[in-house]
Amino acid sequence: MKPFMDENFLLPNGASERLYHEYAKDMPIFDYHSHLPIGQVLEDVNFDNLTQVWLYGDHYKWRAMRACGVSEDLASGIPKAAGDYARFEAWASVVPQTVGNPLYHWSHLELKRYFGVEELLTPKNARKIYDHCSEKLRTPDFSVRSIIRRGNVSVICTTDDPTDNLKEHIALAGENWGCRVYPAWRPDKALAVNNAKFLNAWIGKLEVASGKSVSTYENFLAALQARHDFFHQCGCRLSDYGIERPYAIPYTASEVEAAFRKLRDGTSLVGGELERCRSAILHDLLCMDARADWTQQLHFGAKRDNNTKAFGLRGPDTGYDAIGQFEIGLTLVTLLDRLESEGLLARTIVYTLNPNDHDMIASILGSFMDGKTPGKMQIGAAWWYNDHKDGMNRQLSALANIGLISRFVGMLTDSRSFLSYPRHEYFRRLLCAKLGADMENGELPSDFSLIGGVVRDVCFNNATNYFGMELPK
Amino acid sequence: MKPFMDENFLLPNGASERLYHEYAKDMPIFDYHSHLPIGQVLEDVNFDNLTQVWLYGDHYKWRAMRACGVSEDLASGIPKAAGDYARFEAWASVVPQTVGNPLYHWSHLELKRYFGVEELLTPKNARKIYDHCSEKLRTPDFSVRSIIRRGNVSVICTTDDPTDNLKEHIALAGENWGCRVYPAWRPDKALAVNNAKFLNAWIGKLEVASGKSVSTYENFLAALQARHDFFHQCGCRLSDYGIERPYAIPYTASEVEAAFRKLRDGTSLVGGELERCRSAILHDLLCMDARADWTQQLHFGAKRDNNTKAFGLRGPDTGYDAIGQFEIGLTLVTLLDRLESEGLLARTIVYTLNPNDHDMIASILGSFMDGKTPGKMQIGAAWWYNDHKDGMNRQLSALANIGLISRFVGMLTDSRSFLSYPRHEYFRRLLCAKLGADMENGELPSDFSLIGGVVRDVCFNNATNYFGMELPK
Amino acid sequence: MKPFMDENFLLPNGASERLYHEYAKDMPIFDYHSHLPIGQVLEDVNFDNLTQVWLYGDHYKWRAMRACGVSEDLASGIPKAAGDYARFEAWASVVPQTVGNPLYHWSHLELKRYFGVEELLTPKNARKIYDHCSEKLRTPDFSVRSIIRRGNVSVICTTDDPTDNLKEHIALAGENWGCRVYPAWRPDKALAVNNAKFLNAWIGKLEVASGKSVSTYENFLAALQARHDFFHQCGCRLSDYGIERPYAIPYTASEVEAAFRKLRDGTSLVGGELERCRSAILHDLLCMDARADWTQQLHFGAKRDNNTKAFGLRGPDTGYDAIGQFEIGLTLVTLLDRLESEGLLARTIVYTLNPNDHDMIASILGSFMDGKTPGKMQIGAAWWYNDHKDGMNRQLSALANIGLISRFVGMLTDSRSFLSYPRHEYFRRLLCAKLGADMENGELPSDFSLIGGVVRDVCFNNATNYFGMELPK
Repeated sequence: MKPFMDENFLLPNGASERLYHEYAKDMPIFDYHSHLPIGQVLEDVNFDNLTQVWLYGDHYKWRAMRACGVSEDLASGIPKAAGDYARFEAWASVVPQTVGNPLYHWSHLELKRYFGVEELLTPKNARKIYDHCSEKLRTPDFSVRSIIRRGNVSVICTTDDPTDNLKEHIALAGENWGCRVYPAWRPDKALAVNNAKFLNAWIGKLEVASGKSVSTYENFLAALQARHDFFHQCGCRLSDYGIERPYAIPYTASEVEAAFRKLRDGTSLVGGELERCRSAILHDLLCMDARADWTQQLHFGAKRDNNTKAFGLRGPDTGYDAIGQFEIGLTLVTLLDRLESEGLLARTIVYTLNPNDHDMIASILGSFMDGKTPGKMQIGAAWWYNDHKDGMNRQLSALANIGLISRFVGMLTDSRSFLSYPRHEYFRRLLCAKLGADMENGELPSDFSLIGGVVRDVCFNNATNYFGMELPK
Repeated sequence: MKPFMDENFLLPNGASERLYHEYAKDMPIFDYHSHLPIGQVLEDVNFDNLTQVWLYGDHYKWRAMRACGVSEDLASGIPKAAGDYARFEAWASVVPQTVGNPLYHWSHLELKRYFGVEELLTPKNARKIYDHCSEKLRTPDFSVRSIIRRGNVSVICTTDDPTDNLKEHIALAGENWGCRVYPAWRPDKALAVNNAKFLNAWIGKLEVASGKSVSTYENFLAALQARHDFFHQCGCRLSDYGIERPYAIPYTASEVEAAFRKLRDGTSLVGGELERCRSAILHDLLCMDARADWTQQLHFGAKRDNNTKAFGLRGPDTGYDAIGQFEIGLTLVTLLDRLESEGLLARTIVYTLNPNDHDMIASILGSFMDGKTPGKMQIGAAWWYNDHKDGMNRQLSALANIGLISRFVGMLTDSRSFLSYPRHEYFRRLLCAKLGADMENGELPSDFSLIGGVVRDVCFNNATNYFGMELPK
Repeated sequence: MKPFMDENFLLPNGASERLYHEYAKDMPIFDYHSHLPIGQVLEDVNFDNLTQVWLYGDHYKWRAMRACGVSEDLASGIPKAAGDYARFEAWASVVPQTVGNPLYHWSHLELKRYFGVEELLTPKNARKIYDHCSEKLRTPDFSVRSIIRRGNVSVICTTDDPTDNLKEHIALAGENWGCRVYPAWRPDKALAVNNAKFLNAWIGKLEVASGKSVSTYENFLAALQARHDFFHQCGCRLSDYGIERPYAIPYTASEVEAAFRKLRDGTSLVGGELERCRSAILHDLLCMDARADWTQQLHFGAKRDNNTKAFGLRGPDTGYDAIGQFEIGLTLVTLLDRLESEGLLARTIVYTLNPNDHDMIASILGSFMDGKTPGKMQIGAAWWYNDHKDGMNRQLSALANIGLISRFVGMLTDSRSFLSYPRHEYFRRLLCAKLGADMENGELPSDFSLIGGVVRDVCFNNATNYFGMELPK
């Protein structure tokens, strides 16, 4: 029996082991999509204990705890009642019950890679492991930047609101510490036309940030464009849209202008007017990306905030979201086709939360390659509820079967946690497992230079070429 | 080459063999959902021959026979024309053509486990096998209760209409014979508001059973509640809803009241009125379950009675149903969210007939855990067209990846046949195969106490803790 | 390590090797669905070079080239600018980047089987391989008919428009050269009621071909029936419908008659009228198939011509199609149920481009078996974007789990290329791999006569019995 999570974890045979250890393992990481807090990088903070880094923000763990009957003060800690160690202890009691779930892998991989803990976490050794890790976390070797450097992370992109002043990014850009951190433009709030109150409050911030007053839709675009330009100056080359599904129904300029005035007068949009207005905004934002030669990311398929009672108590991003069942295919074609017709289709990465959509999206994206940019249209890495062995394998298979694995820009963390870089390791092992298995089976040639080259490209080189961002010196 | 269906059938390696033989095999069965006829249990009947037990009610087999060009008198036997042996002979000619289909496994597993038949059934040995098994079936060792006891079945839940007087359940509850049989509440007919004639006839029976006259919607609920109470007194702790999809659109009390009066006046509902009325009834029934601290089961995704001509000749449940393509995700959220907001969300098991929905449903259910009841929201075991190796593995994978396999309440038969208990064996082997494979691969720790404990819990302990029904003394 | 693509390519063990080499390999091919140009068969042409046969018509390859940044003159060659060798060289540079994609397998399998090329194609050996293959292609051994004979192809069905005069088919039918070529009826253009101009132009051709003037819907059907009869006389026993999804909403004869007159007056149909009219036409065409005792094929799920700009430049079938997201399930039931009620449901093969639909469609088809024709309702072989190892395995699994693999009519090429017969080999290897793996695992009996018989039936015998077309003498 293979020991649990040894150096050949997830690697089924000699070819995959060689691919991983000789080609994948030492490649730097290009983490082009994360939710890491730039402020903590700038200040190079240390965490005080393992609960802070593991349980303060990880709704994956909260969900598992709830499913095991653990109460909310110990799970999310909202509102805060329990102490940090009590929460850790509760989590330790849940860990053995997560066998088979990715959390079991993530947790032990992080314990191993960062803290050298070889034991399995259980209620019995919880105290010992907590103390051991927490002590380390308080040393300079575990400052945020040290953790990042140890992960061989070359580039990080954060996720930023258009109204953000990016002052931490600007400050950090002046430092030479082994990793480049870029902002990424996430204008989701500009699309909240179903909630006039929320949108108008946000437009207020946009007016301040852009120095432009917004009374018409034209003004709105001008203000957004000003911020887009500012982000560009700050090194941003990447946008991201977190939307349930593509919005792409027909509209006229005057319809949108009228709807926007209504919004500014405080009326939320509904029905066709809602759909037309957000079709317009989405389209116009995507055009900005194309004109600036950015890459755009589209995240589809999440049905969020499903538990109204819990939302009232704990707010968004606390573990009450799900995979949605939306029409994606026809509308995605409409969205991309219009941009392509206008000559304004940027490099695009499409992520789907519903794993049923992978093959369809891969086949759609293949219809919009331009014969110039290799791998211009990308099906995004396995995301959120797909962020496990089966999910990553499904994404890789759809990509290989319908697209080209050799052109894939690879994995990202999508994470709020500085300890989550082992998921690149995890992904790389699975990539090598898949290709190595095919080499051993005679389904791929036993040519390590060819296949190892693909591995290196997917790990790092493709992203470097694709995104057009400078690497650290 | 491994012999066909030997003692390590479906078990790929040593770890899975050990898990199965040492942890799974001897656990009792908690069959919390079946369609077994309680009357035959009470009378402890014997069957006269193998055709009666295999072909009288099994539309899986009828479908296979039709697909091989076997005529209806031999397949369903509706209307009855062919003799029992002629039908068996026809089935025997079909069996070799089912290689690859679960029927090939089920049939031979039942022949082996119950009758010690080691040969493969073919037209050549059909007579011999028929005589051998039929002779056994007529002995006391093969009475219905003997079969159940031999299967180590601890609990059985049947499926019962609210108007049922449960007299067989009451009678049987007084006997101490090694297995407890509980009724389960299946109020599907109360939702048939698209068919006023059918519904009113059923309400007539409901009035008699409840002793309450039903002219208003309020009366209707009161009559249902009376039956719910009666079922509770008879030991029922479990409901079941067989509906195409969730019904959960907004409505007002007066809309429902008006619609109900229309129904009582003989007008079937259509369109929005139909949808509002069944949204109300479903919601109100689910509230009864929560108030009584029952577990509720929702079976979604079947498109039934697809062949009108065959339906006219043979009626429902004769093999003309299919997997449907319904919107489940958004409405399921609406349904559960309302109940959760009202504090009336019972323990819930959701089954889907469309295997595409597993991941989505698992992610939705994870949004409604309450931090009190471990595994409160359950994604149900593989059902009907998913009741095979791939289907069970898909359900287990979705559960493991997005939920917690360790909290699963496990397999059920969903069967009309007393010989179907080997599907628990089948499921247990697959469970051990999955976990054992991961142990050997180093993806799970080689800790038999940990993983074997999970196996035992899934086989029996979780169901025992979850359903709150007494085990036999 | 197993050598790449050796004689046991895709065969994981001894049982599957034996099944393939002893049972599958030498069976003739019944290619019941292709897009081969009959004219080239009749003239028995030779191709001049490998680019002509590989790159002139294969949009799979064009898509891969575009995805690698290869320009359109080299990819599709539309408009024609680059020379044949320049295009081959571009393709050779892309081939190594297709590792993992089915193109890597198809390309090397064709090089091996037809030309004896054992090297992997790369830019370095492109010239040598091009010259070697092109030289062979110009010899008599590589005429179109020689290629077909070498493939052991017994029957080919082409794809033909109802207005086609079938003169090449008639001429070829008189020759005895080892393979029978039949026309297949593909009346898609008759359904183009969303485009009056296009439809009326086509009806013009229909009037000429049928010798009947078409002013009413009744005339339209009569003209189509005349062509259907003519196709029947020419040996046709098979129809094919390439439609996004089933059309099956209710309509009245007068609605359809009125809509048809509108069409003939030049007005395209939209909305409900469009849907009703094509529901009628589809139904009436399917009735013709049933009355003539043909087999009908339904190809669902393609969303075509997604890139308007590219469509304008290059027209249809140039690599801008995708998997669609359509409602198939409920409407397919309605469509088939009506035909069954009328006693006019022909033998039917349903292909889906969306792999999510396999299980659902298999379960629907099982509801329309007639107890007379074995395997009457067939779930079609993996198609287009599913035409790879995973896709074929998925189709085989759905078929095995929900239908009967033993009754499957097997693989087809669906191809425009005379070199594509190795995909029968590919399919047969996967079939033997699946069954052989189960034999070795003890999930199927190690009975080569039983399982080998199934293999032979799926490879050839079932199709021969099912389609009722004469084999060559």
